[in-house]
Order: sequence, then C-alpha cells, then structure tokens
Amino acid sequence: MPHYTVIVTLLAVLFYFFLATRVAAARNKFNVKLPAIAGHPDFERVFRVHMNTLEWMPIFLPLLWLCAIYFSDGAAAVVGLIWIVGRVFYFVGYTQAVEKRLPGFFIQAIACLLLLIGAVTGIIMRLSLA
Amino acid sequence: MPHYTVIVTLLAVLFYFFLATRVAAARNKFNVKLPAIAGHPDFERVFRVHMNTLEWMPIFLPLLWLCAIYFSDGAAAVVGLIWIVGRVFYFVGYTQAVEKRLPGFFIQAIACLLLLIGAVTGIIMRLSLA
Amino acid sequence: MPHYTVIVTLLAVLFYFFLATRVAAARNKFNVKLPAIAGHPDFERVFRVHMNTLEWMPIFLPLLWLCAIYFSDGAAAVVGLIWIVGRVFYFVGYTQAVEKRLPGFFIQAIACLLLLIGAVTGIIMRLSLA
Repeated sequence: MPHYTVIVTLLAVLFYFFLATRVAAARNKFNVKLPAIAGHPDFERVFRVHMNTLEWMPIFLPLLWLCAIYFSDGAAAVVGLIWIVGRVFYFVGYTQAVEKRLPGFFIQAIACLLLLIGAVTGIIMRLSLA
Repeated sequence: MPHYTVIVTLLAVLFYFFLATRVAAARNKFNVKLPAIAGHPDFERVFRVHMNTLEWMPIFLPLLWLCAIYFSDGAAAVVGLIWIVGRVFYFVGYTQAVEKRLPGFFIQAIACLLLLIGAVTGIIMRLSLA
Repeated sequence: MPHYTVIVTLLAVLFYFFLATRVAAARNKFNVKLPAIAGHPDFERVFRVHMNTLEWMPIFLPLLWLCAIYFSDGAAAVVGLIWIVGRVFYFVGYTQAVEKRLPGFFIQAIACLLLLIGAVTGIIMRLSLA
C-alpha cells in the first residue's frame, strides 16, 4: 500500500469534512434555513466552497491514487498536500469574495494536472515494459 | 480483497441509487420541473437527503476501505452497515421534517468516526511494525 | 492492476472535468454570476449535466472497479466506455432540451446495471470457490 498517499487521503477527507462544518456554521450565521441552499450571498459562497470541493473529489482521489500506484507514492503524496493547501486558500479566499477564490483554485487545479501527468507517465512506462 | 467490505460497498451504492429514485419521484409528486432543484419544500428535503448522502460518499467510502485494509474487513463491514442504517433513518426522518433528520445523521456520522478511528489505528500499528 | 479499467477511469475523469468547463462557459454565456447556481434555464441544464454526472460517480466508479477486480478487466473497461458514450449523449441532448437527456441517461444507467451484474456475478463465483 502507498502509505504516504493513504495519510494524505485521510487529511484531504478530514479537510473536506471541515468544509461541511463551515457550511453548517454559515447557515446559522446568515439564517439560511434547511432545506434551502440559497438565500444569502455570504452563505452561498461558503456553500460553493464545499460543493466545488465535492465536485473535484472524483477528479482528485482517482488521480492521486493512480499516480501513487503507477508512478510514486511519495510524489503523489507531496502533490496531494499541495492540493489540500490550494483548497485551504480557496476556502479562505472565496469566503471573503468571489474573485479571491482564484489563486487557491488554480493551485489545486495544477496539483490535479501534475497527478494526471504522473499517472499517465507511470501507466505508459508500465505498459511499455509489459 | 476484503470481501465483506465489498458487499457493504455494493449495498451502500444501491441504497444511494435508491435515494436518487426518491428525488425523481418527489419531482413528479410536487411538480418541480427539471432543471430546477428547488420550488417546493417537500421536494427540497428529499433532494437534500440525496445530496447530503452524495456529500458524505467521499468521506464514507475512503474511510470504509482504509479501515478494511489497515484494521479489519469484518469490523469495517459491520460499521459500514451501521452507516447504511443511519442513512435509512436520515431518509425516513428528513422526508417527514427537517428536525427529524438528526438521529439518522448522527448515527452515520458516528459510523464514519469509528471507521476513521479504525483506519488511523490500523495505519499506526502497520507503520510502527514496519 | 486492471490496466484497461485504469485507462477508462482516466477517460471518465477527464470527460467529467470537461463537463465542469462547460458549466463555467455557460455561466459566462448566460451571465449567471457566482455564487448563484440558478438564474437561466439554459445555464441550469448544463449545470444539471455536470451535477448529475457527479451524482453518478459514486455509483459508476465503485461498480466499474468491482466488476474489473471480480469479473473481468476487459469487460469492465468496455462497459465503462459505453458509460462515457452515454454521458456524451446525455450532455449533448440535455444542453438542447430537458427531454433530450433521456437516451444518454438510459445508456449510462444500463452500463451501470451491467457493471453491477458483472461485479455480483464475480463476487458470487469467487466466494463459492473459496
């Protein structure tokens, strides 16, 4: 098992869970009652932070693991940490203003691109050796 | 392969699919036409049941499998079944009223916490032996 | 590792990412400003294409991999390609009109059903041999 990637997976899942608690807190603060998912822009930005991170989980997790399995556990774990850092910036920025989401968004997108490159490189190397 | 966990994974996926069919049924019943995702509170609560379960899938599935791989297939499968039971209560309760979502929600959250504890315990034991 | 299924997983993730770029393009075209996720039906249909594909990722990916591991890598990969084709039809159709989403939707749903049948068949065969 790629142990470093396992640890980064746990950290990513925990940070993603933390974002869900921020949505719940924003619901209370801005008085957006369930089952509504809109009603106050300050709530909606926090909601979108969580939702966008959810939207990227089926991109991030498969690429992270394919990169770990086919290329390198250590490399995948380091880039996975960069993804989490990008997501932290995205959360902090987007909570303040819509435009401020972009630096963190691009960091996490580039991390996914690197994981893709690692995975594809590893797969090509493996299949060309087979 | 952790066979018990595989079976629980299939059951969780099937129940999650069942929730999607409940959203479709609620659309018809309360006449919320696509592509809208709001318009009637009775629809929106069912929509939120499905959406919240989706939101927790990237928490539940990785923790379930890391617990199965690093700690115990049987323990992970049993706690995974408890998660599904919690999700059934969540569905039944939330469909009736917003407050009634809470018991099932806490059951499934505690199940995820147990899976996290199992996974982390297993990882620490494995790495301290290595 | 089931190499064909790995490649289909990458293709599915890339197509899913492509759908996210279509949502961003539809935001600009129909002037739906973040953090809103509604406001123009032409945007909302594209938004639903992406969202519905996200909703099915925790169904598709686990079934794809369980079918690959327990039944056949080649069979899982072929059915996984059919799923992607169904998703392409779904995207093209739904972008035009709500009713036109159905053919692609059923193709991808049948693909998931085939993956489920393959996975369950493989699991039963494996456990009855054990």
